[in-house]
Amino acid sequence: MLPFDFLEYQDRLKKTKKKMEERGIEVLLVTDPANMNYLTGYDAWSFYVHQMVAIAIDEPQPIWLGRYQDANGAKVKTWIYDENVIGYPDYYVHSDKYHPMDYMAEILTQIGQGNRNIGVEMDHYYFSAKAFERLKKGLPNAVFKDGGLLVNEVRLIKSDQEIGYMKKAAILAERAMHHGIESIRAGVRESETAAKISYYMISGTEEFGGEYASIVPLLPSGKNTGIPHLTWSDRKFEDGDSVIVELAGCYQRYHVPLARTVNIGAPSPHLEKLAPVVTEGINNVLEKAKPGVTCGEIEEVWRKSIGRYGLEKEARLGYSVGLGYPPDWGEHTASLRRGDNTVLQPNMTFHLIPALWFDKYGIEISETFRVTEKGSETLTNYPRDLIIKHPFIFNQHEGEIS
Amino acid sequence: MLPFDFLEYQDRLKKTKKKMEERGIEVLLVTDPANMNYLTGYDAWSFYVHQMVAIAIDEPQPIWLGRYQDANGAKVKTWIYDENVIGYPDYYVHSDKYHPMDYMAEILTQIGQGNRNIGVEMDHYYFSAKAFERLKKGLPNAVFKDGGLLVNEVRLIKSDQEIGYMKKAAILAERAMHHGIESIRAGVRESETAAKISYYMISGTEEFGGEYASIVPLLPSGKNTGIPHLTWSDRKFEDGDSVIVELAGCYQRYHVPLARTVNIGAPSPHLEKLAPVVTEGINNVLEKAKPGVTCGEIEEVWRKSIGRYGLEKEARLGYSVGLGYPPDWGEHTASLRRGDNTVLQPNMTFHLIPALWFDKYGIEISETFRVTEKGSETLTNYPRDLIIKHPFIFNQHEGEIS
Repeated sequence: MLPFDFLEYQDRLKKTKKKMEERGIEVLLVTDPANMNYLTGYDAWSFYVHQMVAIAIDEPQPIWLGRYQDANGAKVKTWIYDENVIGYPDYYVHSDKYHPMDYMAEILTQIGQGNRNIGVEMDHYYFSAKAFERLKKGLPNAVFKDGGLLVNEVRLIKSDQEIGYMKKAAILAERAMHHGIESIRAGVRESETAAKISYYMISGTEEFGGEYASIVPLLPSGKNTGIPHLTWSDRKFEDGDSVIVELAGCYQRYHVPLARTVNIGAPSPHLEKLAPVVTEGINNVLEKAKPGVTCGEIEEVWRKSIGRYGLEKEARLGYSVGLGYPPDWGEHTASLRRGDNTVLQPNMTFHLIPALWFDKYGIEISETFRVTEKGSETLTNYPRDLIIKHPFIFNQHEGEIS
Repeated sequence: MLPFDFLEYQDRLKKTKKKMEERGIEVLLVTDPANMNYLTGYDAWSFYVHQMVAIAIDEPQPIWLGRYQDANGAKVKTWIYDENVIGYPDYYVHSDKYHPMDYMAEILTQIGQGNRNIGVEMDHYYFSAKAFERLKKGLPNAVFKDGGLLVNEVRLIKSDQEIGYMKKAAILAERAMHHGIESIRAGVRESETAAKISYYMISGTEEFGGEYASIVPLLPSGKNTGIPHLTWSDRKFEDGDSVIVELAGCYQRYHVPLARTVNIGAPSPHLEKLAPVVTEGINNVLEKAKPGVTCGEIEEVWRKSIGRYGLEKEARLGYSVGLGYPPDWGEHTASLRRGDNTVLQPNMTFHLIPALWFDKYGIEISETFRVTEKGSETLTNYPRDLIIKHPFIFNQHEGEIS
């Protein structure tokens, strides 16, 4: 039932422990749901309450600590022995008196881990300021260290099986993009396009279905295309509108994001000029991307490429991507930007999204690529250009769902 | 363009400031995206980076502080003056050197708010342990107080317009439930049902579309119905399976959750016995729910109702519900459980989900209700019972999407 075999989990755990040793961490409290999944297989929408996987450097088994009603899920969805799955009573949930970290501190103390060097994921989602305060109070003899991004660093290089899952996610991304764009025409609501994308992303292919992506489809249209993180509304597309579609296919929680910009009818002169510049920049970056090159050097290629047209981009170009839970599919380690000295290695995967935003318009064309032995390959295969929807051609297949 | 008029935002701000005064907080740093939205209208999927709305007790305008590329969105989607929207440069994002809270501390100092009593949302999503550490370091002259749930307490009682949005969300929930259940039969993948639910939840009605819910559809089937927070998989439904469907309709970020249990063909004797007990319990609770009654008293009605059948429930029965962002649609204030002394008042809204889980099976039948002047009303209207899908009746409308 687990997405990877036992040996792959053992390998991940071994690499994690090696990094713990390097950082002087004896017990790592993993609260990031992606990292919990990566090390144990645990997968459920239970991260809205406090939970963790505790890794002691000298213990072969992790310990899952979470809400009592979720413990069954941890028994079924992980390789951890049932006796290492410990649930806290429900009165700890969203209470003004009790805090789950009080319980966890008590358990860690009882099993003799309370007075060690303890790593916590200081800047990860779902490890709140209060969680840390209560842990410190409950474990007065522990020495706390920042274990942030420790597991994420292990995640940077994917196994072949992980790449296999990402290739399935790529198929889901292409499919969702195809049907989403097909639905875009004047008079259609943004919400209808978002609904179509969601349907095809999840219903998947004959062979496999998809999962929820860590970010919902982003779908600004018209003047809102200058605002990157808007979700859809009931705005109706109009002739001449541009529409940005950013989505990801997701399989076994592995993401392959893909963004395209669509125009209903003839694009504005701005967009028409920008699109080939962005495409050329992406082509240049993909040609440069290979083992041994740094993320900063990748950015330099992009900067020079668009600089020839008098353009500049303030924000980073992209980031390491893979396993994720809401609110992000990025891995928070390597970024494609100036000063990032991460050296590309085979089976690293990046979402290259060199978007350009202006006050009233913007453009996004993106590719998710894998570093290969000698170069790079994109995971999706979708026309890398501004996509023009001709308003007078009505697609006969429109509306056909399954 | 804002979902509420200016006066409603002013009223929310006024109530928030009153609570700040009661708690001795001069500046409240609101980092919970639901609270940011509630006070300013801000709505975008940008909460995967650090951001906040700062409320100074003696200033009429809040200040939005977030990523530079999201500042345009804050200008368009809020009633805040443009000059109070401040973006931090992109090199602060997911960096190992720079932290957005350093920047925010600097701004707060510059505008003379750095040496005051500052409230932070200690246990809310997205306010990480590190965010707090960096704020404390950047504001050495501030006195920090826990401003947790302060805005959430204001959110407990809805305005009539909020209730109006929830009634639209209820229509979306009914529609998604109807089509989801319609798709359930032996041989269909869980992912197909999840895709259908997502499509109808978002595509909405002729009059209005829907949004993403803060929790994706939860859809355990077969033996997994004992595990509450599992999302869907590619498992195919089998004759005799029970399937739990928990979802929410969402409109203007207001949620109305709804859960039902479905059986393909004849249910097991366990389920058949449990369903009327749960329904009777819900009916008893809804009869009791009225202004002046406490959450704890509601729980007592449930406890006695199922106690007559020798049953007990460990977890809480429900919680205050409304505005939300992933990962939760619950408001984290009032819970329907023993010891919660919150007194019901008109226009409070609760998700009553007295689910029962056992090792290999479970049942969920839920209702979202509003407290009225004299009693309560459910927001959705869906058969309150175990739903039987007869395996040999094929629905002709199956697969028809729009």
